[in-house]
Amino acid sequence: MHTILKSVTKEITIGIDHPFVMIGEKINPTGRKKLAAALAEGNLDYILQLALDQAAWGADVLDVNVGVPGIDEVSVVKKVVELIASATDLPLCLDSANTDVLAAGLAAAKGKPLVNSVSGETKKLETVLPLVKDRGAAVIGLTMDDNGIPRTPEERVAVAEKILEHAVRKGIPAEDVVIDPLVLTVGSDSKAALVTLLTIELLRKSLGVNINVGASNVSFGLPERPTVNAAFLTLCIQAGATCAITDSAKLGQTVRAADLLLGRDANSMRYLKYFRLAEKLREAEATEAG
Amino acid sequence: MHTILKSVTKEITIGIDHPFVMIGEKINPTGRKKLAAALAEGNLDYILQLALDQAAWGADVLDVNVGVPGIDEVSVVKKVVELIASATDLPLCLDSANTDVLAAGLAAAKGKPLVNSVSGETKKLETVLPLVKDRGAAVIGLTMDDNGIPRTPEERVAVAEKILEHAVRKGIPAEDVVIDPLVLTVGSDSKAALVTLLTIELLRKSLGVNINVGASNVSFGLPERPTVNAAFLTLCIQAGATCAITDSAKLGQTVRAADLLLGRDANSMRYLKYFRLAEKLREAEATEAG
Repeated sequence: MHTILKSVTKEITIGIDHPFVMIGEKINPTGRKKLAAALAEGNLDYILQLALDQAAWGADVLDVNVGVPGIDEVSVVKKVVELIASATDLPLCLDSANTDVLAAGLAAAKGKPLVNSVSGETKKLETVLPLVKDRGAAVIGLTMDDNGIPRTPEERVAVAEKILEHAVRKGIPAEDVVIDPLVLTVGSDSKAALVTLLTIELLRKSLGVNINVGASNVSFGLPERPTVNAAFLTLCIQAGATCAITDSAKLGQTVRAADLLLGRDANSMRYLKYFRLAEKLREAEATEAG
Repeated sequence: MHTILKSVTKEITIGIDHPFVMIGEKINPTGRKKLAAALAEGNLDYILQLALDQAAWGADVLDVNVGVPGIDEVSVVKKVVELIASATDLPLCLDSANTDVLAAGLAAAKGKPLVNSVSGETKKLETVLPLVKDRGAAVIGLTMDDNGIPRTPEERVAVAEKILEHAVRKGIPAEDVVIDPLVLTVGSDSKAALVTLLTIELLRKSLGVNINVGASNVSFGLPERPTVNAAFLTLCIQAGATCAITDSAKLGQTVRAADLLLGRDANSMRYLKYFRLAEKLREAEATEAG
């Protein structure tokens, strides 16, 4: 199953027989004070820099979340979407808990964006899916519903099925629904990552859908988080995940190594290309810093 | 299935329901000029340091290979085995292509060592297995035979079955045979790692044996080898490998992260303990260097 995202000039295919897709996570003010301030002050230069940096480090798609209390998110999301489209050729992933903001982002975005996110919650299904359908977008479906996040892989897959059914009934093609099995922090529950990995395997076998993971929550509260995040993303890719909302600068090399090791990179071409890119970017950073 | 290794005072259990076991790879002169010189000159201090460093970085077992052209390996292996036993409490993995050297190492080692290695080659089966049986040791069985390294997972598993049959017929318990599915360099064959991973899955399902991997060959010739090695080891652990001949200083953190993410580390105890250990060792190294 292939999920195709588009900007005006670029098409990105998410699928198990394609290179793993990285959705850049950095344009999201949660836990990023400098970005929250930039959004509040309308400092577009900083946001532009985040977009360009992520594109340089190999992000295939950019997540856009402008959720800062007290700002006019509807007008801000429009500006940010247009700004990014003017400076990069990457498709966007519009990320908001507010339907009006999603609608504004979808109206401003060209091509075929991804919506982050719907879930199995009744209200979300009723408000988000029509937007996705009307715009011809794709959508991330989180495996949680009105009762919260289920504990077992089987229950999470059942929520995924429910989301898929609702989407298809509304006229959204099944391949435009990317399921996110959710991951809790392994520091507070040592089975948390395992449940997510088993959910991914089960989703792959039973539904064959594309699967997104958020690859940094898992290590919350632990030391040496990059090591845990790299190992987790590797495990998710092996289990069957096909895209992640992640930090391409930190995890790009691991993603390209996993693709290579899983036999999805003939002659190591993508791995070597990424290595040369990263080497140049690190040199440039060192020169600036020095 | 549990493979138990012993020193005089310590017991290490290899098994899918136990923490992943790291066999320290550094006492092997292949590609290590300084160690080759130390072995040729009888410089035991350097060898002792390699043993202590690996033990400090969390190696559970130490590989011992003294193969340097022109030296009396039989007498050297005895000295090295006794030296390590005097300074650490770790079980040993005796590593030689020469049966006389294995015999001398087995005679010198206390407890229950591991022999590295037998294969499906007729001569190896006939010469190595009797030594393993007489000493009550465990043995690593490489999935290659008189025709070389098979290309498919099924053929490699068939070689593993042949080794197991020969071992059991000679009176070696099946649980004392650890299979190594071998890995070629992914840089020269982009399916090389995948074949190894599929072999691991098939071995786990069909034979249930313990599985060892050598986790650094895979990245030969590629840049950023540690990233590839870390990703590969993570993939192997998920597929069902239970031990690796590896560099505990470089890959220990990844191994502990993989155990944690796969739900084998209640309350993150081993991960956090390893992090604190690594932090202290890095501080000590920085102090020495500064």
